Amino acid sequence: MGDIFGRNPVMEALKTNRTINKIWVVKGEQKGSIREIVALAKEKRIMVQQVDRSKLDAMFPKQNHQGVAASVASADYVDWQDIVDIARKKGEDPLIVILDELEDPHNLGAILRSVDAVGAHGVIIPKRRAVPLTDGVAKASAGAIEHVPVARVSNIVQVIEELKKQGIWVAGANMHGQYMHKQDLTGPLAIVIGSEGKGLGKLVSESCDYIVSIPMQGKINSLNASVAAGVLLYEAYRQRNAGK
Amino acid sequence: MGDIFGRNPVMEALKTNRTINKIWVVKGEQKGSIREIVALAKEKRIMVQQVDRSKLDAMFPKQNHQGVAASVASADYVDWQDIVDIARKKGEDPLIVILDELEDPHNLGAILRSVDAVGAHGVIIPKRRAVPLTDGVAKASAGAIEHVPVARVSNIVQVIEELKKQGIWVAGANMHGQYMHKQDLTGPLAIVIGSEGKGLGKLVSESCDYIVSIPMQGKINSLNASVAAGVLLYEAYRQRNAGK
Repeated sequence: MGDIFGRNPVMEALKTNRTINKIWVVKGEQKGSIREIVALAKEKRIMVQQVDRSKLDAMFPKQNHQGVAASVASADYVDWQDIVDIARKKGEDPLIVILDELEDPHNLGAILRSVDAVGAHGVIIPKRRAVPLTDGVAKASAGAIEHVPVARVSNIVQVIEELKKQGIWVAGANMHGQYMHKQDLTGPLAIVIGSEGKGLGKLVSESCDYIVSIPMQGKINSLNASVAAGVLLYEAYRQRNAGK
Repeated sequence: MGDIFGRNPVMEALKTNRTINKIWVVKGEQKGSIREIVALAKEKRIMVQQVDRSKLDAMFPKQNHQGVAASVASADYVDWQDIVDIARKKGEDPLIVILDELEDPHNLGAILRSVDAVGAHGVIIPKRRAVPLTDGVAKASAGAIEHVPVARVSNIVQVIEELKKQGIWVAGANMHGQYMHKQDLTGPLAIVIGSEGKGLGKLVSESCDYIVSIPMQGKINSLNASVAAGVLLYEAYRQRNAGK
């Protein structure tokens, strides 16, 4: 999937409810079908960005983009409640990863592989300031994108509160908590991973039940985000399967 | 550091023994100082690649590259024996990561962070068909490149045999071994991680003392290479620190 361009294809994607990450419209192009596209996008709360014509020319060289293009998700999103329900239906304790403003498609792809590998139930990402399911993510996921349910939500804190109400423990990952090897990670659990640059946001961190930390013995004070997610997921996996 | 260009800078780097990953020379430019550069590079077994002028023009836009450029390591390499000796001097069991033809600078950078984080002693990479210490690696390492000793060797299998002679267990990571949680990872240990596309090479795999596996419960049969390295390092860390 990836990027599509032209008035009809973009309008078609909007009408058929394909997941659109963003729409680009050339500045000043606000007539006829483009006006319709912008109106429909606003109605559906899809971000519309005004750009110079040269930007679309560069994105789609020698192609007739007609002043409009869209970034379409490489896989469809699910509702976050579905992720919980899938786990419950299987008779398993939910194990969910929440990504707070992760930016790098390599990292998201790598995390989808780890989620698949430990048999976790899905990933929740925010709609804003975070990498969506792009072609780059699909490639980095080595196919895991086809198997791991991903939900995209407007408000991570609100979803954390809902998860807690449903009996799921929410563990934020940063440096200032209990070491993961001493923290019980069995039972229904959502692990929250912060962004590459800034770590966990303050509000998100405060909404977690507790903070869990990966021991760090060196000079650098953080791991790559996808490595951190993988290490925590495998510690949860180990504890859940201890004695089996 | 990164890429340098021009006849004097490249000659200077060669003479001062800075670590050069590769030299580019424009096809047909074989006169005077360029001939000297090529001769000295061959003597030092540094790869010299003949390229079209347009390639260097694109790499160094609007700059006078004089038909020659070099990719210089972003950090200096150590001898592999130094890595073992550092651990022994500290009175610690060596914990070493060997990377068999890893290609992605993001992955190498992320692995350097994990090696620093668990207090492992260094990384061994091959000279050929593997990403060296580039600027991209330095950036992805978030500074860990300054603290983690990296050795670059001609023959990984030979070094594995030497490590074994020195009493270090060598564990290859792939799908067909004992699960890491049931494998003793304490004591002197080198963990070998395969390339992103092909995993562990056959010769390398056969030279290992044993194979260790990360449990995989999903549909995809491998993790991202840097995640796999991180997960194995943290399992070794957990076992080494159990009871502390």
